[in-house]
Amino acid sequence: MEIRVARNILSLNDSLANRVRAELERRDVVLLNLLASPGAGKTSLILALAKCLEGQLRIGVIEGDLASRVDADRVAAAGLPVIQINTEGGCHLEARQIADALPRLPLDALDLLIIENVGNLVCTASYDLGEDLRVVLASVPEGHDKPWKYPKIFLEPDAVVVTKTDLEPHVDYDAAAFEAAVRSVNRDVPILRVSVKTGEGLDSLASWLLARVR
Amino acid sequence: MEIRVARNILSLNDSLANRVRAELERRDVVLLNLLASPGAGKTSLILALAKCLEGQLRIGVIEGDLASRVDADRVAAAGLPVIQINTEGGCHLEARQIADALPRLPLDALDLLIIENVGNLVCTASYDLGEDLRVVLASVPEGHDKPWKYPKIFLEPDAVVVTKTDLEPHVDYDAAAFEAAVRSVNRDVPILRVSVKTGEGLDSLASWLLARVR
Repeated sequence: MEIRVARNILSLNDSLANRVRAELERRDVVLLNLLASPGAGKTSLILALAKCLEGQLRIGVIEGDLASRVDADRVAAAGLPVIQINTEGGCHLEARQIADALPRLPLDALDLLIIENVGNLVCTASYDLGEDLRVVLASVPEGHDKPWKYPKIFLEPDAVVVTKTDLEPHVDYDAAAFEAAVRSVNRDVPILRVSVKTGEGLDSLASWLLARVR
Repeated sequence: MEIRVARNILSLNDSLANRVRAELERRDVVLLNLLASPGAGKTSLILALAKCLEGQLRIGVIEGDLASRVDADRVAAAGLPVIQINTEGGCHLEARQIADALPRLPLDALDLLIIENVGNLVCTASYDLGEDLRVVLASVPEGHDKPWKYPKIFLEPDAVVVTKTDLEPHVDYDAAAFEAAVRSVNRDVPILRVSVKTGEGLDSLASWLLARVR
């Protein structure tokens, strides 16, 4: 019975995700679902990309957290339209929450809507939010072995982005071992490397994104 | 109905957790449940503590991961008894898995059994594994705002351990802001700081642990 309940929830989520996708396609807005561990640098990367793409892409943000408005306040301070969703204990966002947020966003004034999902390498992987693009971040200080331990989230993203590359000299991190671990579950996904602090790789990531939105 | 199913699962977990606790009390083994984000340094800390406490505490380990034996292999290489549990996609360990692992461990030769839970700041908080001590790690590169965003896991641990303090000069991290965030949900929990790399704080943490096991 447990399994049947879980399947029903997922199938309801999938149908709502498809509705979100159709609505945003009609409004000509690309939806990006950003997944990562807590503290991998999701918010900082969104703000850095928004700055890189200023004048080229109009970006809005949906922030998912169990509690607080910490991230939404940072994003709003940068002048981007933002909705904060608090999951009140929930370990991932669901399509229903995105569907509810859409009417509160100025969709006609956006080209790209970025969802910052709850910091979680497990549960977020199972929920389609209606996104056109899924990007997984993995920060250098987390270590190079994460794809071995959390394989599912690396199976089908459109890109894997290694963040905080500026910390590489200060930690035991083997970039080739990380790449091999990603390749063990995903042969083709692009792996991009960025540091918001030094700016390394930001232009390449912005170009990658621009090519998929325009 | 969903809620009733969830409650039944939790109540079954609680009764198995109590059985684990009773069995380990009878065998005179203290059980520690170690919770953190992916890549916060759980395995490295276990190995560093085991070295600090060599000759004083006999330590065994249960490793929880979605997949792989990466962590168990590291622990076994250090000469500690270890069981690897793969959750096959599950976002947390449950008491049933600990109960199943106990007969495969040399309990008569152990003083302390450490569970390294799945890297997850959300789901792990809700499951009693029969532990006597619960410790939450939060690494410096994750940032100082995690208790605002993931409050539940900081509500009732026996200690909060800040790891990777050696990275503090290289990241934007405000130790006072982290402490204030912890205090917003938990007035009394001890906050200890360690760096496995430099050894800072390891002796204090080892003493704290020793006082609770002996």
